[in-house]
Amino acid sequence: MPCRAHRKVDPQDARAQESDTGSFSLQGVEGNLLEVVFLGTAGSTPTARRSSPAIAIRRGPELILLDCGEGMQRQMILAGLGMKSKMRILISHMHGDHVLGLPGLIQTMALFDRRFPLQVIGPEGVLAFLKAIKETVKFGVTFPIEVKEVQAGLVYEGRDYHIESAWTDHPVPTLAYALVEDPRPGRFQPEKAEALGIPKGPLWGLLQRGKAVSSSTGQVINPELVLGQPRHGRKVVYSADTAPSKSILELAEGADLLIHEATFGDELAEKANEMGHSTPSQAARLAKEAGVLRLILTHISGRYDQAAGFLDGSKRIFPEVLLAEDMMVVRVPFRD
Amino acid sequence: MPCRAHRKVDPQDARAQESDTGSFSLQGVEGNLLEVVFLGTAGSTPTARRSSPAIAIRRGPELILLDCGEGMQRQMILAGLGMKSKMRILISHMHGDHVLGLPGLIQTMALFDRRFPLQVIGPEGVLAFLKAIKETVKFGVTFPIEVKEVQAGLVYEGRDYHIESAWTDHPVPTLAYALVEDPRPGRFQPEKAEALGIPKGPLWGLLQRGKAVSSSTGQVINPELVLGQPRHGRKVVYSADTAPSKSILELAEGADLLIHEATFGDELAEKANEMGHSTPSQAARLAKEAGVLRLILTHISGRYDQAAGFLDGSKRIFPEVLLAEDMMVVRVPFRD
Repeated sequence: MPCRAHRKVDPQDARAQESDTGSFSLQGVEGNLLEVVFLGTAGSTPTARRSSPAIAIRRGPELILLDCGEGMQRQMILAGLGMKSKMRILISHMHGDHVLGLPGLIQTMALFDRRFPLQVIGPEGVLAFLKAIKETVKFGVTFPIEVKEVQAGLVYEGRDYHIESAWTDHPVPTLAYALVEDPRPGRFQPEKAEALGIPKGPLWGLLQRGKAVSSSTGQVINPELVLGQPRHGRKVVYSADTAPSKSILELAEGADLLIHEATFGDELAEKANEMGHSTPSQAARLAKEAGVLRLILTHISGRYDQAAGFLDGSKRIFPEVLLAEDMMVVRVPFRD
Repeated sequence: MPCRAHRKVDPQDARAQESDTGSFSLQGVEGNLLEVVFLGTAGSTPTARRSSPAIAIRRGPELILLDCGEGMQRQMILAGLGMKSKMRILISHMHGDHVLGLPGLIQTMALFDRRFPLQVIGPEGVLAFLKAIKETVKFGVTFPIEVKEVQAGLVYEGRDYHIESAWTDHPVPTLAYALVEDPRPGRFQPEKAEALGIPKGPLWGLLQRGKAVSSSTGQVINPELVLGQPRHGRKVVYSADTAPSKSILELAEGADLLIHEATFGDELAEKANEMGHSTPSQAARLAKEAGVLRLILTHISGRYDQAAGFLDGSKRIFPEVLLAEDMMVVRVPFRD
C-alpha cells in the first residue's frame, strides 16, 4: 500500500492543521475524533441552500473526503478544514456533480504549497479525468497524486481502519464506501491488574493500550489478562448515488452511521428508482434492515429546498433519521 | 457570425428569464439595462469572503460572463441569474481559477434543459479543455456550444454592440475584453419636428428611434433633421489578470467602467508585476491615463480579506475607485 507513507506527519503540516482546525491532538490519533462534515448536500445541481455533493470525514488528523463536487475547496475553507492534511479522496462515480471540484481543490492545495501525497480512490475514469485536466488547464502541482482505480472490495487498508466498497445501482459505475475501524482493546480492569501484582502507574497505561508488561516478580503479563472483551470500532457508510441496493444493504450492516442518498421524495419513488436514485422511506427501510444506528439523508433535489415533510414517511420506518444540511457536523461516538 | 441566431428570443426562455430576474423588459433591449454583477472577486484561491473569479454583465435580456471560476453556477443561482438566458462567455485565460466553473455550469444548464446555443469565446485552449471534459466526465448536453478561439481584436459583433479584446501582460496568453455599445441616436428636438410639420404623436417615436417618416405634405423627413448629435454608447472593460499594460490602457480608453485586477496591495508592487499582476495604485494610474469614468478592482488575494487601507493609495490617484465584493451589482448609466 503506497499510502503507508501518509502516516508520517510533516511537522509543518501538523502545525498548519492545528491552526486550521484547533480541535485535535496528534496524540491518540487512533483515538477519539470521528466526525462527518457535510460540505455539500445538493443533488445534481447546487441550489442557494445546498452546494454540490461533498462530505468530509475527520478522523484524528486525517481527512477522508467522500466525493468532490464543484465548490468543495471553498466549502472546506468555510468549514475550517485544512488543505495540507493527510487526506484521501473517495470518488463514487464520474457524473460531473461528484467530481468537478477535484481540479480546483488540487490547484488550491498546490498554491498552498501542499507537500503530502494525495490519494484519490475511485472507479475507472478518475485517472483519465485528472490527466485531461492536467493537459488542458494551466497549473502546477507541488505534491504527488496517487490515483487508485478500484472495483468493489477492500480499497484501502490503514493502520487501524480500512475502507471497503460496493457497487451501487446507478446508470454509470458507482461505488459506495464503508470506513471500518479495527476493534479497540477491551476495557481495563484495575482489580485484575492489582491481583497480578501490577501497581497503578505507567504499566497500567501500557496494558490499556494492549501491550504486554512485566510484573514486580518478573512475570510477563499479557494485556488480555486485564482487559475485557475487545470493543467495536466505528463504521461509517456512504451510499453514493443509488436506487435501493442489496449490495449497500450488506455493506451497511451494523454501521454506526449510514449516509444514504434521497434525491427524490417518497411521492416520486418510481421516477427515483428509474433514474438510479432513492427516496427517504426507501433509505429508511434499508437502514432498518441493515441494523444501523443512525441514518442521514443527503443528495437532495432542489425541488425540496422549500418543502416541508420530506422525512415524514421515513421517520415512521426508522426514527433515527436526519436530513443533511450544508455545514452540518455529526460526531460518531464509540458504542461502548 | 453564427451568434446572430441568439437574437431570436425563445418565449419559454424569456419567461424563465423574467421569472428568474424580474427586472427587465424584452422591449427596448438595445436600451437601458447595463449592469455588472460581481459573482466572484477572489484571486487565485477562493476565500470565505470571495468566490473564484466570475463576473456577469446583464445587458437587456442577455448575459455576458467574464471568466468562469469554480462556483460560477452557484453564484449565478444566488444572484438570481437564469441558466437559460441568451449568453456568451468570455474566458480570459486557461489558469484553473478562471475556467474550472465552466463544466459545472454547462452540466447544470443541460439539467435545466437549456436549448439556446451557448457561445464561449477565449484564447487557444478553451476548446481542448471542453473536449477533454466531454470525454472524461459523464453528462449530456441539450444545447449547441460554439467555441470561438480568438486573438486580440474584434471577437464579436452584435446588433448594437461589439466586443474587442487585447493581450494582457500575464505568464500565459491572456485576453482583456471591452464591451462597446454602438452610439445611440441624438436627442429628439420637438421644436424642429413641429417646424417641419410633424405633429406630436407616433411619428415622433419613429423619428426618435432613428427612422425616416413622411410629413403631412408628403415630404420625407430624415431623423437627422430632428435629432441632436449621436450620443455615446457605453463601454465596459475587463482587464483580466495582468501587470500594468499598454494594450489595456488603449483598450480602456474613455470607458464608462474599467474592471481591473489588483491581486496584490501597493506594498507588493514588485512581486505583483513579476507574477503578471497589478496593485490598486497601478490600476488607478492606468484608469486616470485612460480617462475612464469609474474603476472597480477585483481578483483580490485572500491576504487582504481582513486588511484595511487596501485602496488608500489608489484613491489619491483616482478617486472614483471601488473594491469589488461578491454579489455587488453596479449599474452603468448612459452619460448623456
